[in-house]
Amino acid sequence: MPFQYNEFYNEKTGLTVGINKQLFHEKTPFQTVEVFETDTWGNLMTIDGMVMLSEKDEFVYHEMMSHPALFTHPNPVDVLIIGGGDGGTAREVMKHPSVKRVDMVEIDEAVVRASKLHMPEVGDFDNPKLNVLYENGLTFVDGPEKEYDVIIIDGSDPVGPAVDLFKKEFYEKCHRCLKDDGVLVSQTESPFVADYHKSIRSVHKAISELFPVAKLFLTFIPLYPTGMWSMAFASKQVDPLSDEVLEKIVEKLPAFESTLKYYNKDMHSGAFALPNFVKEIIR
Amino acid sequence: MPFQYNEFYNEKTGLTVGINKQLFHEKTPFQTVEVFETDTWGNLMTIDGMVMLSEKDEFVYHEMMSHPALFTHPNPVDVLIIGGGDGGTAREVMKHPSVKRVDMVEIDEAVVRASKLHMPEVGDFDNPKLNVLYENGLTFVDGPEKEYDVIIIDGSDPVGPAVDLFKKEFYEKCHRCLKDDGVLVSQTESPFVADYHKSIRSVHKAISELFPVAKLFLTFIPLYPTGMWSMAFASKQVDPLSDEVLEKIVEKLPAFESTLKYYNKDMHSGAFALPNFVKEIIR
Repeated sequence: MPFQYNEFYNEKTGLTVGINKQLFHEKTPFQTVEVFETDTWGNLMTIDGMVMLSEKDEFVYHEMMSHPALFTHPNPVDVLIIGGGDGGTAREVMKHPSVKRVDMVEIDEAVVRASKLHMPEVGDFDNPKLNVLYENGLTFVDGPEKEYDVIIIDGSDPVGPAVDLFKKEFYEKCHRCLKDDGVLVSQTESPFVADYHKSIRSVHKAISELFPVAKLFLTFIPLYPTGMWSMAFASKQVDPLSDEVLEKIVEKLPAFESTLKYYNKDMHSGAFALPNFVKEIIR
Repeated sequence: MPFQYNEFYNEKTGLTVGINKQLFHEKTPFQTVEVFETDTWGNLMTIDGMVMLSEKDEFVYHEMMSHPALFTHPNPVDVLIIGGGDGGTAREVMKHPSVKRVDMVEIDEAVVRASKLHMPEVGDFDNPKLNVLYENGLTFVDGPEKEYDVIIIDGSDPVGPAVDLFKKEFYEKCHRCLKDDGVLVSQTESPFVADYHKSIRSVHKAISELFPVAKLFLTFIPLYPTGMWSMAFASKQVDPLSDEVLEKIVEKLPAFESTLKYYNKDMHSGAFALPNFVKEIIR
């Protein structure tokens, strides 16, 4: 029975998606995970009623969560993903030949299971570089000493289990788990929605206090509220807009650029351009 | 009685807006013009059921339809706007001190009337530089010789009266109405929607054949389908990414940058960065 999936970001304004049928529904100890077959975006995963990804738009989010960070780091070998259970971010990270190991710390195995079942092209779960750990990301970065080159925080929205992923304590722990040239990226919601400004500011303030390089970048995501999404970017040494990074992109991207639908050298630089009203949010 | 305004861009997928009440409804000889009071975006104008602008998001579209073109032209004095009846594009154009006259050729006076009544902050209709003409833009550019510095095609979607604004014949006429260093910009729909690719390609092909500089740029528009919008950009001489343009922005923008919420020097350059899938559409 076809129906409409509605996700409101402000009062009763938001996204409406034509659904052919529901494919997955599970109330886990952490959240409600659902997958729907949509009319035009392929299968769509939601968590607690918020869109996480569709098969047809996921390329934007996953490419932009990965490549700006991976190209900024001089030689990324060990990568940590917090969340990211659908597998898309890990898939993009593992396209970089220097990467030897990806630890994906997903709190909820149902997300991985739903993705494998209903979005088989999204994850690259059989890749031997991928190490999936079903743990709480917050306690994982608080545990025994770890040293990563890149940390990607691919959590859901700042409600439910992901709420602490927007707090300074968490970024302090991530900072400690990064090597001396480490790079971090974290999704930080839409700047067009006033309710999200607090989260954007909170993360930006935290990384600005911890890292010498702290920026925000933007990307188009058609199925996320307002279509404009922001990502926080932090680096211990290298600036993402430095000549060395742009040269590295020219040198190393051609090896796998044909697999990318969004990211390229121009988008790398262009994504860091911020409209005046967005600059104002993080001033 | 509150209700939902839905605009679908694909089957039954699209935007849903919470409406408090309807403020304007008129079936004109050309189209149906409506204005609604929304829950969070201020008043919203639609034409034939398609969102044109809301009071709270219009700044993006109007700044980006104007400033990239006006800063690319070395000295814009005479500007033609085809459509643009809400007045927002003219308002931005007239912020440039060099501009002496703006001819706004709007086919439907009801659009101007609805904007003045229900979006009084959008237009700057009392500005003596503004010359509003209620004519068909297609025949206007086909009439007696005219010489503009900049032409901005601010029409609605390629259905109804605006359909010919996406055809080569129209761009040939615009090209003839531009001086030797003329610049043109035209809205060309969302690259995320397959149904629009034909329009994007058609306009891009036309301007590529007519102008030495032909580009596409992108902007975030939260109430347009998918939130990603494209604009065609054509110039007879100056490249929008040339050093002379970037220097002109640095020199002239500070005089009115405090009135802008979106456009700045970084956004000027960043907007011309195109994702791989968008490059593919216009290849």
